[in-house]
Amino acid sequence: MTDRNVRIEPFERRAVDDQEIEIVERKGIGHPDSICDGIAEHVSQALAQTYLDRVGTVLHFNTDETQLVAGEAAPAFGGGEVVDPIYLLIVGRATKHYDGQTIPTETIALRAAREYLAETIPELTFGEDVIVDVKLGEGSGDLQSVFGDDDVSVPMANDTSYGVGHAPLSETEEIVREAERRLNGPYSADHPELGTDVKIMGKREGDEIDVTVAAAMIDEYVPDLDAYRDAVEDVRAFVSDVAAEHTDRTVRVHVNTADDYDAGSIYLTVTGTSAEQGDDGSVGRGNRANGLITPNRSMSMEATSGKNPVNHIGKIYNLLSTQIAQAVVAEVDGVTDLRVRLLSQIGRPIDHPHVADVHVVTADGVAIADVADAVEAIVDRELGDVSELTRRVIDGELTTF
Amino acid sequence: MTDRNVRIEPFERRAVDDQEIEIVERKGIGHPDSICDGIAEHVSQALAQTYLDRVGTVLHFNTDETQLVAGEAAPAFGGGEVVDPIYLLIVGRATKHYDGQTIPTETIALRAAREYLAETIPELTFGEDVIVDVKLGEGSGDLQSVFGDDDVSVPMANDTSYGVGHAPLSETEEIVREAERRLNGPYSADHPELGTDVKIMGKREGDEIDVTVAAAMIDEYVPDLDAYRDAVEDVRAFVSDVAAEHTDRTVRVHVNTADDYDAGSIYLTVTGTSAEQGDDGSVGRGNRANGLITPNRSMSMEATSGKNPVNHIGKIYNLLSTQIAQAVVAEVDGVTDLRVRLLSQIGRPIDHPHVADVHVVTADGVAIADVADAVEAIVDRELGDVSELTRRVIDGELTTF
Amino acid sequence: MTDRNVRIEPFERRAVDDQEIEIVERKGIGHPDSICDGIAEHVSQALAQTYLDRVGTVLHFNTDETQLVAGEAAPAFGGGEVVDPIYLLIVGRATKHYDGQTIPTETIALRAAREYLAETIPELTFGEDVIVDVKLGEGSGDLQSVFGDDDVSVPMANDTSYGVGHAPLSETEEIVREAERRLNGPYSADHPELGTDVKIMGKREGDEIDVTVAAAMIDEYVPDLDAYRDAVEDVRAFVSDVAAEHTDRTVRVHVNTADDYDAGSIYLTVTGTSAEQGDDGSVGRGNRANGLITPNRSMSMEATSGKNPVNHIGKIYNLLSTQIAQAVVAEVDGVTDLRVRLLSQIGRPIDHPHVADVHVVTADGVAIADVADAVEAIVDRELGDVSELTRRVIDGELTTF
Amino acid sequence: MTDRNVRIEPFERRAVDDQEIEIVERKGIGHPDSICDGIAEHVSQALAQTYLDRVGTVLHFNTDETQLVAGEAAPAFGGGEVVDPIYLLIVGRATKHYDGQTIPTETIALRAAREYLAETIPELTFGEDVIVDVKLGEGSGDLQSVFGDDDVSVPMANDTSYGVGHAPLSETEEIVREAERRLNGPYSADHPELGTDVKIMGKREGDEIDVTVAAAMIDEYVPDLDAYRDAVEDVRAFVSDVAAEHTDRTVRVHVNTADDYDAGSIYLTVTGTSAEQGDDGSVGRGNRANGLITPNRSMSMEATSGKNPVNHIGKIYNLLSTQIAQAVVAEVDGVTDLRVRLLSQIGRPIDHPHVADVHVVTADGVAIADVADAVEAIVDRELGDVSELTRRVIDGELTTF
Repeated sequence: MTDRNVRIEPFERRAVDDQEIEIVERKGIGHPDSICDGIAEHVSQALAQTYLDRVGTVLHFNTDETQLVAGEAAPAFGGGEVVDPIYLLIVGRATKHYDGQTIPTETIALRAAREYLAETIPELTFGEDVIVDVKLGEGSGDLQSVFGDDDVSVPMANDTSYGVGHAPLSETEEIVREAERRLNGPYSADHPELGTDVKIMGKREGDEIDVTVAAAMIDEYVPDLDAYRDAVEDVRAFVSDVAAEHTDRTVRVHVNTADDYDAGSIYLTVTGTSAEQGDDGSVGRGNRANGLITPNRSMSMEATSGKNPVNHIGKIYNLLSTQIAQAVVAEVDGVTDLRVRLLSQIGRPIDHPHVADVHVVTADGVAIADVADAVEAIVDRELGDVSELTRRVIDGELTTF
Repeated sequence: MTDRNVRIEPFERRAVDDQEIEIVERKGIGHPDSICDGIAEHVSQALAQTYLDRVGTVLHFNTDETQLVAGEAAPAFGGGEVVDPIYLLIVGRATKHYDGQTIPTETIALRAAREYLAETIPELTFGEDVIVDVKLGEGSGDLQSVFGDDDVSVPMANDTSYGVGHAPLSETEEIVREAERRLNGPYSADHPELGTDVKIMGKREGDEIDVTVAAAMIDEYVPDLDAYRDAVEDVRAFVSDVAAEHTDRTVRVHVNTADDYDAGSIYLTVTGTSAEQGDDGSVGRGNRANGLITPNRSMSMEATSGKNPVNHIGKIYNLLSTQIAQAVVAEVDGVTDLRVRLLSQIGRPIDHPHVADVHVVTADGVAIADVADAVEAIVDRELGDVSELTRRVIDGELTTF
Repeated sequence: MTDRNVRIEPFERRAVDDQEIEIVERKGIGHPDSICDGIAEHVSQALAQTYLDRVGTVLHFNTDETQLVAGEAAPAFGGGEVVDPIYLLIVGRATKHYDGQTIPTETIALRAAREYLAETIPELTFGEDVIVDVKLGEGSGDLQSVFGDDDVSVPMANDTSYGVGHAPLSETEEIVREAERRLNGPYSADHPELGTDVKIMGKREGDEIDVTVAAAMIDEYVPDLDAYRDAVEDVRAFVSDVAAEHTDRTVRVHVNTADDYDAGSIYLTVTGTSAEQGDDGSVGRGNRANGLITPNRSMSMEATSGKNPVNHIGKIYNLLSTQIAQAVVAEVDGVTDLRVRLLSQIGRPIDHPHVADVHVVTADGVAIADVADAVEAIVDRELGDVSELTRRVIDGELTTF
Repeated sequence: MTDRNVRIEPFERRAVDDQEIEIVERKGIGHPDSICDGIAEHVSQALAQTYLDRVGTVLHFNTDETQLVAGEAAPAFGGGEVVDPIYLLIVGRATKHYDGQTIPTETIALRAAREYLAETIPELTFGEDVIVDVKLGEGSGDLQSVFGDDDVSVPMANDTSYGVGHAPLSETEEIVREAERRLNGPYSADHPELGTDVKIMGKREGDEIDVTVAAAMIDEYVPDLDAYRDAVEDVRAFVSDVAAEHTDRTVRVHVNTADDYDAGSIYLTVTGTSAEQGDDGSVGRGNRANGLITPNRSMSMEATSGKNPVNHIGKIYNLLSTQIAQAVVAEVDGVTDLRVRLLSQIGRPIDHPHVADVHVVTADGVAIADVADAVEAIVDRELGDVSELTRRVIDGELTTF
């Protein structure tokens, strides 16, 4: 049916929702690690798009190594100040000279970082609360003639690597992911006191879910301790409501549990991120490509953010395997849990992985054989469409963390 | 039997050795990510020891964020040169003032990095091939009065986090780990042409194991292409022999498969590490605490290297869970595969995790109930000995990557 | 008449205007050295003002060491781009903790630099064409209790140092200074193609003055070579007119003499400053406190820009001696040229210099004795008003370069 | 007699020794500014020599912008420690690619800096007490085909600039220069407690000379306050003896006058340089090319150290004018003081300055006409030998600060 090496097998384990203990974590967009992920990925998009615009093809680059050095801040009810700035170093490789043209890779990177910060963490005054520096080495100058205006071929894998994806999310995963997205979306639009550095951990034991939220509050909008208490309670109530939409299990929500009101120790910040005071960050240390950290599932160590979306196999396969898993769940009845692993081999076209290894948990009464053909067809189709995935990454349609 | 919350359960999956597909990777000590891990951990040891020596207790610090920016090199048969130096930025927090004393945290960090590099990658001329910079923010100054000369208490968990460990290693894991250790040990002592940047990937499909080695060769000891070919073949033969000691399965070893002799593209370096040319690195992006990257097993995203060994729960629980798993395998008959997860809760003593969750694969004919008591006793004992683990980390007896 | 040690003596040499050969130089505000001077001085003003606002007195600081590392640019008719950003490192010392307060010295410095660049070189996109970094060490924390809201005392000299000032400007000096000021003022308002990096050298031999202008043109406003030629000619004509206002001597004006049209080598820039391509800069390497480099006159090596205006004797005495010289020329008839030197002694109040040494060239028929009392009275008065000078420096009313 | 434009004129002023007030300063080799000068110049020598060795000619470079950011130290009787390292940034331009070769300019610069520091300030532990970083932009790649193995031509001036030199040294100048040289030479060999950061100011009023020495003492060799007092007194006595060799005038020597023994404030250091604690430095801010700061004489603002010795006219003319002045004094009787100024014009060969302007003070009874021919001949000869000067600079035979 396909010339691709696809293997469909039963998953030995139960669906994650049926396991006894589950742990899920998400670092919100203002977490120091996520800031690095976001900047690395936006730099990557900006470079890829510039290469397409100027030379018609994406040249060699890799920018998956942003380092954030925390600042020092003096928050205060009603508004404090950053004392020592955050230092952000964008690190990577990019092709600067090609076919007589000079590509201003460093200024492109700086602009992408600046625009990303302005959009996602506007409380950080650029060039004052945060210094952005850059060290982009010259790339090899090799042409990656594989993705461009008139691409007909598919790139070769640059490495022996693998990607892994899952679907559907468990209830706990849904709660953790949705809570952060909505806190950093509609909720914060109405509650300016909530910073972007929201870290959520979900822990499920049997049918009891504990959701622990660490939410940085922005001092300018918090006049006093009562207001702070209210802000904490508002987050708690909101997350409880979000959780109730996704599960019938018992959910307890805890917010800023490390606070000690008597000792005057609360999670108050000037800018809404702990990067302002003591929390360093870097790329690839936080959320996986699906936005979560899920020790109950296989995870890839690859940093997805910042990598070249044309030929970096770790990035592509992490995103693609997740997309395949989601497609299977959406399109094939009877699949309750699914893991897709794609393993590359150096030198093979990336649409022909060394092996595509799919483990499926089926619903009661459904056999693997009942779904295997449909699953394989989806794997085949999505692999064939891999260039479309690259395009969507460059356009910023896919999140990587 | 114990007041600790220990759960022993059967592992739903087969032992890793019995699974169909297995992937294992190890980045050798000269890999850019490993260089960062190693420096971060040595800085951590040096700081912890200095605090013990000077104030009798380990103060607040965390140095788990070294960033390496690759250099540029011009290797040549017989000896080339580094053109642009590697830039290494040590990042973290450390308490500089305590009880009237000033602790020279930055110079301690620089010395630890320098000594570590001199010992592990002597080909890198310090201050010429590599620049080491440091940005250590002032720590909170909080006393961590929990570990010192006369510690009687156990520290509280600083975070809700978890650690995970496994035992025993699968055959493929053994091969990958042993091959790197021996290449970077006795082999390189006899073969100066082999650099420290040895990256090994093992892939097993059923009973066929492919071991792919990327081995940086040092140009000074490689006079010409014939010598290079010999060096590659020597590594191949050596790794084949190592593999044969650990398995009866079919093993194929591939070394430097990306070489293209006709195009003059080979893996020749000046210093034995790809950090000299284009490969950036950072902490926590490579090997897990057990020295391997094992997508077939649960892994923690926590960077273990560089963290404070007294109270950083991610570090302690990753190392401790591995140690528990190894102890169980060594001491309890009938256990063929084992996963230990330790989940902390902020504010609880670290020797009393929220849950210690042990999944066991037993040998044919052995029931969980047959081994549960013995396993639980070991978990209990090792948790009770957690301070001893901290001591060993500070003394450098435990590897973290 | 005064208890200050003032010495009035005849100047052995002729007035500068009467000397045979004269050389004068001014680096415009967009010259890399001047950029550093300007940033250092604005950082100094911002810190001094913040200290006054927050603690009522100017604390210890010194920020006279900004370093600029040039970028790389690709100018093109009609508009090119910066390829590698300029890197600017603000260096110095400042008191961060005082009386329970934390002063955010680094963010203050960054803001001052950003605002200064935005105002003086708006073509430089902050955070994209230029990275501004900062390393401010902690000052000693000593209180400088000598200048504040209710100062009654005068600070002690912090060093044995001296300052030197002259008046009036010679014709050549007037031409050089005025030409740059007006080019960077009204002229550039009408001629957007003229960058701020205007460097002017005046050389007079007898009655012939050669004015050599190096003027960076901004590519966005220069569509082609003809437009460039016109821009150069416009500058030449304008400077010739300025010169004619200040002298009856013969003046030749040369603009961008290093251009080679045939070779396509012209002084075209993206941002109007050579800092974008290859010209590094630092504080104290360019203009002296009176805005000029005048090898025919005594000069102080002290960097005036960036220094603490309360007690840094080199800064104060350079500005004050210039102010005294100008006052003498304005108020006392018969003085044609004048040099004032103020020499401090550590530990003496700054309004009582070790010696104030005034050398006077008088007009024909005027004896030193005729003017000595008037000169001495002015020296005495201005020294007595030294705190007012500090106030004006903090308010940005005095230029330092 | 010569086709060079040489002008010999009487000097209007008296010889410096005969002026009423004289100020002279020298910053010793361990002063932060001098450290920068020394590193910049050694980097320059290393680059020039490497270019000669590898491509037979000196390519474009300029490294006159080292920035030193002071560290923080905790000195203590018997031996303290550096707490925060000194940060040194080498800045400049250098040609990295030429004729198919890659020149490792950054590693050359780092090595030169390391070797220079090891030799001159061995107390600074490299990579621990001091971090050396480098940012060398790519030079233009223009060939400077003017100085090399078989040079027959003379380079063209790269700028309109000038240099100035004097001879002989006044008595006060001799004292200041000799005292520093001998303190940092034979004296410190016998007195390990004396650091290299010795700053000497000489002030002469009529026949009274005050020599003020600020001498950093090294704590390791100073067990207590009595030893410190002795160290200070030893320096005072030594400098007094040196002074007596050079003058019959009254000399008072003051050492470390800012000390306050009661307040425990003394000039004690760990490494012998104030760069360890709060004193920043940069190139060109200290001594002029003749090793002194002499406000009584014309001075050039040009930083001599670090500049390209082949075609950087400011460097060459500062060194050459000094050499000419010294030669005249050595060879021509009746000259008591002499100033040589060399003014270049862009595009003219450097051995044919636009004007060589010599001002001479003659002994009683000697007329300018008596010495003019001899002086002119020396100017002519030395200009003709300018390439030899470049050679000596590259070989490190000439000091630049």
